[in-house]
Amino acid sequence: MIKVGIVGGTGYTGIELIRLLMLHPEVEIKAITSRTEAGKKLSQLVPNFIPQEDLIFSPPTLDNLAACDLVFFATPNGTAMQMVPDLLAAGIKVIDLAADFRIQDQALWEHWYQQDHACPELLPAAVYGLPEINRELIRNAQLVANPGCYPTAVALALIPLLEQGLIATDTLIADVKSGVSGAGRAANIATLHAEVSENFKAYASAGHRHQPEIEQTLRQVAQTDAVQLTFIPHLVPMNRGIHATCYARVGSALQQQDLTSIYQQRYLDEQFVSLLAQDQHPETRAVRGSNQCIIAVKRISEQQVVVLSVIDNLVKGAAGQAVQNMNIMYGLPEVSGLDTIALLP
Amino acid sequence: MIKVGIVGGTGYTGIELIRLLMLHPEVEIKAITSRTEAGKKLSQLVPNFIPQEDLIFSPPTLDNLAACDLVFFATPNGTAMQMVPDLLAAGIKVIDLAADFRIQDQALWEHWYQQDHACPELLPAAVYGLPEINRELIRNAQLVANPGCYPTAVALALIPLLEQGLIATDTLIADVKSGVSGAGRAANIATLHAEVSENFKAYASAGHRHQPEIEQTLRQVAQTDAVQLTFIPHLVPMNRGIHATCYARVGSALQQQDLTSIYQQRYLDEQFVSLLAQDQHPETRAVRGSNQCIIAVKRISEQQVVVLSVIDNLVKGAAGQAVQNMNIMYGLPEVSGLDTIALLP
Amino acid sequence: MIKVGIVGGTGYTGIELIRLLMLHPEVEIKAITSRTEAGKKLSQLVPNFIPQEDLIFSPPTLDNLAACDLVFFATPNGTAMQMVPDLLAAGIKVIDLAADFRIQDQALWEHWYQQDHACPELLPAAVYGLPEINRELIRNAQLVANPGCYPTAVALALIPLLEQGLIATDTLIADVKSGVSGAGRAANIATLHAEVSENFKAYASAGHRHQPEIEQTLRQVAQTDAVQLTFIPHLVPMNRGIHATCYARVGSALQQQDLTSIYQQRYLDEQFVSLLAQDQHPETRAVRGSNQCIIAVKRISEQQVVVLSVIDNLVKGAAGQAVQNMNIMYGLPEVSGLDTIALLP
Amino acid sequence: MIKVGIVGGTGYTGIELIRLLMLHPEVEIKAITSRTEAGKKLSQLVPNFIPQEDLIFSPPTLDNLAACDLVFFATPNGTAMQMVPDLLAAGIKVIDLAADFRIQDQALWEHWYQQDHACPELLPAAVYGLPEINRELIRNAQLVANPGCYPTAVALALIPLLEQGLIATDTLIADVKSGVSGAGRAANIATLHAEVSENFKAYASAGHRHQPEIEQTLRQVAQTDAVQLTFIPHLVPMNRGIHATCYARVGSALQQQDLTSIYQQRYLDEQFVSLLAQDQHPETRAVRGSNQCIIAVKRISEQQVVVLSVIDNLVKGAAGQAVQNMNIMYGLPEVSGLDTIALLP
Repeated sequence: MIKVGIVGGTGYTGIELIRLLMLHPEVEIKAITSRTEAGKKLSQLVPNFIPQEDLIFSPPTLDNLAACDLVFFATPNGTAMQMVPDLLAAGIKVIDLAADFRIQDQALWEHWYQQDHACPELLPAAVYGLPEINRELIRNAQLVANPGCYPTAVALALIPLLEQGLIATDTLIADVKSGVSGAGRAANIATLHAEVSENFKAYASAGHRHQPEIEQTLRQVAQTDAVQLTFIPHLVPMNRGIHATCYARVGSALQQQDLTSIYQQRYLDEQFVSLLAQDQHPETRAVRGSNQCIIAVKRISEQQVVVLSVIDNLVKGAAGQAVQNMNIMYGLPEVSGLDTIALLP
Repeated sequence: MIKVGIVGGTGYTGIELIRLLMLHPEVEIKAITSRTEAGKKLSQLVPNFIPQEDLIFSPPTLDNLAACDLVFFATPNGTAMQMVPDLLAAGIKVIDLAADFRIQDQALWEHWYQQDHACPELLPAAVYGLPEINRELIRNAQLVANPGCYPTAVALALIPLLEQGLIATDTLIADVKSGVSGAGRAANIATLHAEVSENFKAYASAGHRHQPEIEQTLRQVAQTDAVQLTFIPHLVPMNRGIHATCYARVGSALQQQDLTSIYQQRYLDEQFVSLLAQDQHPETRAVRGSNQCIIAVKRISEQQVVVLSVIDNLVKGAAGQAVQNMNIMYGLPEVSGLDTIALLP
Repeated sequence: MIKVGIVGGTGYTGIELIRLLMLHPEVEIKAITSRTEAGKKLSQLVPNFIPQEDLIFSPPTLDNLAACDLVFFATPNGTAMQMVPDLLAAGIKVIDLAADFRIQDQALWEHWYQQDHACPELLPAAVYGLPEINRELIRNAQLVANPGCYPTAVALALIPLLEQGLIATDTLIADVKSGVSGAGRAANIATLHAEVSENFKAYASAGHRHQPEIEQTLRQVAQTDAVQLTFIPHLVPMNRGIHATCYARVGSALQQQDLTSIYQQRYLDEQFVSLLAQDQHPETRAVRGSNQCIIAVKRISEQQVVVLSVIDNLVKGAAGQAVQNMNIMYGLPEVSGLDTIALLP
Repeated sequence: MIKVGIVGGTGYTGIELIRLLMLHPEVEIKAITSRTEAGKKLSQLVPNFIPQEDLIFSPPTLDNLAACDLVFFATPNGTAMQMVPDLLAAGIKVIDLAADFRIQDQALWEHWYQQDHACPELLPAAVYGLPEINRELIRNAQLVANPGCYPTAVALALIPLLEQGLIATDTLIADVKSGVSGAGRAANIATLHAEVSENFKAYASAGHRHQPEIEQTLRQVAQTDAVQLTFIPHLVPMNRGIHATCYARVGSALQQQDLTSIYQQRYLDEQFVSLLAQDQHPETRAVRGSNQCIIAVKRISEQQVVVLSVIDNLVKGAAGQAVQNMNIMYGLPEVSGLDTIALLP
């Protein structure tokens, strides 16, 4: 049994992580921590857990995490980096679901996150936890930076084309749409039901923190710095799910059958990436609560390819991918604890 | 033209009130005030107003309201009572959409609202602004206490039966359901989209502030203090609308046709109360954005009557009723500015 | 491994049943049938199943079900009764999720379902599959009539009081609210998104088929025919979930602590019924996708008790309860295949 | 008073049209027709109309429309063209809200709509009713083809750039998102609440009927046939609203201030097109129930422009634009009957 701790267990990501880890056959939860809810029972804060054996929140101290093999951070950006050096020094592995270790370039991180990095010396050793490109590095990592939700959806959509050098890298467009749980469980007028429901809008078109993270990944797989991405996020009146609609320009020689074949081969061994037939469209509800990414790739016209991908932002876009990374780090089957089927409806 | 001011124009009730008054043919808006948004344009805060001539928020001072004939308060409870004495002294009429003047019994008010009343001497002169029972008093009122949303829906459902003395007054039940805009536009985790959507629950079953307000009205129309109401509010995953399902015990002599006839006669001249046939059920969307209350009354079994009523909590349950009250106070047709048709869907 | 077949696997109940059975550790699905979709792959109709080993729909014939130990019917009312006699004769057990065997009184069934019963001779042997009252009968049953969704929520709310003879049985009220999946997956204007969303209404107040089913259960547990129930269903703009708000009159001697104690003792050993503290309110999302029923019981006034209960209409109200019944019939732990945690949000 | 008739008044577009025309100060509704609902009262089918004077559906015959000056068709595609020749011959003007007269190229129309055109001889005289480009033609038209919802949103977003020849016309992308009322009020599993709610997906990426309509308009304003548009529609879990996110490649000389200025000048005199500041994002709820189109244009990178536009698909995308066209045809102020403010929330 892997002994785990979860720092920050009261947000949507933290609760989803507890849900997955509690049902995981090889995991024992040793601690869930929360500064504000310390002393309270999990089932009282979240009645969804009533049928399970109860857990109690403790304060997020090193002592309370000392018995863990692995600690997950489901905290706001800037929190994990305060504790990670001590945890690593104590021989405890870390998966950070926030953004503290996602960007390798310290200056770039500090620009986008508007704060100094507390432990830049750890950045080189941090592994970006997208198993579909970094599986071997994750296997031996002490510190995993779990990818963002948009970056996961966009990267999985574009990786096969970029790896093959088949698309123009300077005219990429990602028109992405997210459910509102991506904004977190904080008191905020903008995410009230009466603001979000029966409404649709773009936001942050002038610059979103996920953009440098996506570009870092796309540059790595394309093996070129000449990547230019137009990234427009939108807010969908639903709770869970991300849909990325990606547009890329290709040479006219590339046929639909080539496209299909490239994606099939690339993801043949990936248990959490599925492909649809050319005439189908992925839908977010098909992955709600599951760690799956479903993709359809379509040649729309002679030079235009469109790739559609969907994930659950809280699962493959956060907690599920963290569990997948843990499974890899501990040599478990990747589907361990993740073998679920999305509810319909 | 009636010159009006709106204190507290940034919440859902205030915005709805501005919407109605801006399109009202006999009204000129002289001031909209907001402590936090003073100096900002209405259309910038609420782009719904873009096509209209713009208004600018000013601070809520007496000076800024001095040019008004009538001031509406769409503020949190406890705010209006701080300014009302000065406004009345200046000859300005007031309609308070909050609860400050709804409860005649000062001690009862202070118990439920957990504060001292700032001007209890005004309570006797305050008129409870439910036109269907107090039209003549409203006509001459200087200070109108606009009813709460639940109280409006429940009172209109039960008044005809209580006035006729046809039901047991000590076993009344109101099972009420409200959209989330009733909770206001404040940053609050409990009303986030991700908390409300795809969820349904009761709340405040141990005591809701609208209960004493409803009982005050029911006692008045029943002309007895022996009114006992079980009042259970529920939160519906939608933005607007209240549905009251009221249960009352009747004598076995009363037939469905009697019931229908009693309601028809009682509301014959009421332009904002409509009755459905016995086999129909009112739905909240039929009154969304409109000042209508739609009612169906049903004899379910020998001794059980069920009355269904729907209103839009922000219109007949708040801003629309306030405009109706203004129309009465100024001798205008009651439908003036309120002659709309609810959108479908 | 129990070999099972599912007749009617394309509706919401059937899909939910396949989801639960596919992940059940002791079940092997031998056949899923559909008259209209025979020959098609499950994952093509419902992409939620993509990550699983695929199943193919076959026509609903006896031959296709011959290898099963147990057959579930997730079909429209009136379908199961055509095939059940032959299946039972072949030694195959049956759990019918529709209403064909729920009402013991043939004439009453034929009145409400507007058709002749095809095999009334089987009614006496059919066991009403509510484990909390019929566990021992279910254990040995060949034919289980799986309860309706409203009946499950209302019965579980009222059983403890009725068994103890503590409430007046002739003034019971169940004000129930359901998500729209209860109406099934049929092309129907009334359940379109544009009709249901941002709307709330009562329906079928003149008589709903679940009423005689509920009354049959309440009479059984109260051991009296003098049960009179006012039952008003409402449609909530959400997909899953039922919330029952039940009103009962009690003697003034009964205290809140008595109520709490009665419920605690009654459901002490029930793994799928949980109780909340007196000041809490159950919410439907806490049981979404889970087989749990969460109840709160409240003494509102001297003679009024209110019981709140929530279930997922497709799980404890349909497919989950069917799996629970199967577990009982085969001597498995009742939570087998049902040990899940509801997603939040 | 303009005497109007509405053929097909029971769908969402027809009901919205009746709502707008009933409140229009210069219109008298002489007939509303429906083949299936003839003889029934409007308020009985749609209780939203209860407070208004009632109308009765009649069968859609020429006789029933003979007293009209103008007839609106809110019917399925292929219906209007059966009656329009006779109506025009009788001197009655026509506005068709369906697609029968939108495509000037008969063969193209027949390809996309999979039927023969009943009166191709009328196509040359039919005016495409987008006032922002065809106002003068509309003024004198006998037959107006009211634009589709997506075409309105996309055309208004791109017209200023195309007219000025500022963008590459062969790499245009329109990533469009629509609420579900655009799919109409027909019994259809795909648009059930339980299918649409809490879900997001693209659809019809292989070809949507609105694509040739959009391209026809874009070619007209760009004055070139070399227009190539990638058009990907998506379904949003909401009832009303369209959001178009349009991507275009520009020369690097064009600055944001140029863009802003071009749009401001182009739409200076348009009462139903509004522009946001560069750092703002339009949202669909700001135009719900209103005839407004709100646009923001953004230079994202050296060569990439993004234009965001929102409309209400049932108003500016259908019924409201039809009323605007009527106002133009009869010399009324364009805002007549359309001077509303979108509800919030």
